[in-house]
Amino acid sequence: MKQANELDKFDHFTGFRDRFEIPDRIIYLDGNSLGLLPRTVSARIRNVTEQEWGEGLIRSWNQAGWMNLPMKVGDKLAPLVGVGPGQIAVGDSTSVNLFKALSAALSLRPDRRVIMIEDDNFPTDTYIAEGLANLADYELRRASPEVLAKMDIGQDVAVLLLSHVHYRSAEIRDMHAINAAAHGAGALVLWDLSHSTGALPVDLAGTGCDLAVGCTYKYLNGGPGAPAFIWVNPDLVDRASQPLSGWMGHASPFAFSDSYAPSAGIRRFMSGTPQVLNLSALDEALNLWADVDMTLLRRKSMKMTEFFIEGVERNCAGFGLQLASPRDPAIRGSHVVFDHPKGYEIVQALIARGIIGDFRAPQTMRFGFAPLYLSFVEVAASIETLKDILEHRIYEQPEFAIRNTVT
Amino acid sequence: MKQANELDKFDHFTGFRDRFEIPDRIIYLDGNSLGLLPRTVSARIRNVTEQEWGEGLIRSWNQAGWMNLPMKVGDKLAPLVGVGPGQIAVGDSTSVNLFKALSAALSLRPDRRVIMIEDDNFPTDTYIAEGLANLADYELRRASPEVLAKMDIGQDVAVLLLSHVHYRSAEIRDMHAINAAAHGAGALVLWDLSHSTGALPVDLAGTGCDLAVGCTYKYLNGGPGAPAFIWVNPDLVDRASQPLSGWMGHASPFAFSDSYAPSAGIRRFMSGTPQVLNLSALDEALNLWADVDMTLLRRKSMKMTEFFIEGVERNCAGFGLQLASPRDPAIRGSHVVFDHPKGYEIVQALIARGIIGDFRAPQTMRFGFAPLYLSFVEVAASIETLKDILEHRIYEQPEFAIRNTVT
Repeated sequence: MKQANELDKFDHFTGFRDRFEIPDRIIYLDGNSLGLLPRTVSARIRNVTEQEWGEGLIRSWNQAGWMNLPMKVGDKLAPLVGVGPGQIAVGDSTSVNLFKALSAALSLRPDRRVIMIEDDNFPTDTYIAEGLANLADYELRRASPEVLAKMDIGQDVAVLLLSHVHYRSAEIRDMHAINAAAHGAGALVLWDLSHSTGALPVDLAGTGCDLAVGCTYKYLNGGPGAPAFIWVNPDLVDRASQPLSGWMGHASPFAFSDSYAPSAGIRRFMSGTPQVLNLSALDEALNLWADVDMTLLRRKSMKMTEFFIEGVERNCAGFGLQLASPRDPAIRGSHVVFDHPKGYEIVQALIARGIIGDFRAPQTMRFGFAPLYLSFVEVAASIETLKDILEHRIYEQPEFAIRNTVT
Repeated sequence: MKQANELDKFDHFTGFRDRFEIPDRIIYLDGNSLGLLPRTVSARIRNVTEQEWGEGLIRSWNQAGWMNLPMKVGDKLAPLVGVGPGQIAVGDSTSVNLFKALSAALSLRPDRRVIMIEDDNFPTDTYIAEGLANLADYELRRASPEVLAKMDIGQDVAVLLLSHVHYRSAEIRDMHAINAAAHGAGALVLWDLSHSTGALPVDLAGTGCDLAVGCTYKYLNGGPGAPAFIWVNPDLVDRASQPLSGWMGHASPFAFSDSYAPSAGIRRFMSGTPQVLNLSALDEALNLWADVDMTLLRRKSMKMTEFFIEGVERNCAGFGLQLASPRDPAIRGSHVVFDHPKGYEIVQALIARGIIGDFRAPQTMRFGFAPLYLSFVEVAASIETLKDILEHRIYEQPEFAIRNTVT
């Protein structure tokens, strides 16, 4: 705990903590799943509801800038992923954006019929790839870790879909190397940035990426179900097509012309009417990031996950925990997982004591370390509580075995 | 005006007006595009933001019922469209739901390759059908009004996509007759209810419908970009598949299994994480409808559109207005359109005087009559203002020619 206090003293981000609502008696190790509420968001949403909707009504599409919100929000995201303004559109869910981006990649490689995915990607990524492959008669090829390590990509692969940071292990992929290898085989790469954005610097342009999508309700604190984002390399975007060609992606949405003509640039990836309340919450939440130095943020994140791993392994040795994240911080994102046969029950026991992490079947305990608002003292306290729960087998209490819908 | 006062005196819905925020000095004839703000919505959204998100955080997926919100909201919609509980899922935009529903229809008619659409449907319906046809190699066949009148549907048509109430003319289609004719040819019908729901009684089950989608930010007052809904006939739903097969439509979303297995029932049409703020606003807005008698609502709507048409034609004769909605109220929805070569400018001049309608290119002025909150006195005042603008050619003032993004 003394060490934790020292580390907090030199934390560059202490000022940020006050910019979030932090519930009493909670240590929140789940900012990788749903980020905290930034303080200014509630007032913004109230204004959007009462003034923009209630008073402005339909006029707010112009006067309050609702029409341009998907691109305005995209421009706030752009520096976090290393791209320029006007290149990101925000709207719909990550699942829906995955569908659009995969379709776009396929449209750019019309002579190839294979979608390659990693064996153990986040479920929705796999399911969406399955859905698209079944609908449009593509082959879905699952790559084992060995195949991926060798980047053994056939000449028939149109697109490789990968998570930049793995949702379970937190392993970081080498974007530059993978892009280069895929391009060597004539394939494109679609990156899922859901567990990267806001957790570590991402350089889409500098590493030669083709397409990316990502989630905004995790480290970006956009709120429950906040809309996702999509980016397509500007060299590709005007040749890419996507089938969710709704009116908001049309070159002239209000010309009401009788056939679809895609907008230039990333706007063609917009579909229906944007969900203004959620999008406005995200817009407000992203204002924080203008003041964030991503290099310092990454340094804190690495230090914090390291501190947690060391502390857990030192204090909880002999209780059957197994680190399932990379030990090397250079290839570890901002969360840490330990496997345990009673992982579900342990996570429930932690939550009962105010320490909120999450569980991923079958036996993974996942702890997220959002560097913007988490302190080392909180991490130290979490380790002590975990130790207590393991040592006294608190997790064996029957109430911790009750299964919820979401954990 | 005297007649309007009389009509207001016998209005069954006068009590509802107080349940909405009504801006000062505005007569809102655009509830068919974005409904008014119901009074209780702002407090609800504040609670969702500050308590459920800010305090409850990730726990709110269970404890605040976020996980079940898409189905809970669907159950509130169900009686408005004549179906039972558990049959409607709410989420994503209308465009995205159109894509899902069209795909589902095609999956149910695997031996047929034609999507039939009306020539002049709402743009996004047409564009989405185009996108799907291009992606999965279906034929898109455009039906002229004459073909539709004869229901001349070939044996190769898998699905016919129609609006129940036309977005421009407000013409109501005969669901029962069209379903029967389409079924006779072996085709399914997908109904877009965007301009029907909350404006007139809809009986999906009783008229033998197959699939339907609809918008909730118009007469249902769900707020800007509120999520859309989808319904598939229970006799069909478990055989229907859709390609936006995200994790929320999986039979066991949190089993994290490595391939997709659709949920039973309409849940399989859910894709990604629901946008909780927008969905909660809609959930709150729909509480009003428990007290609405749809037969009385329809009666008021018919009377009001009739009152408007008569008043305009009597007061504004000779100024070049042309009624472009059905004259027979039995086949007219809850909005009315007049064409005029200077329609855009006239609508802008009306807005400048606080009377908000909208304009649809090339020359249609559209006036919506949301029966829940509009009074006959407001309609009478609108007619007088319109007359003044036409008589004194106010619309020729140059500021009314400036084109906005949305009108």
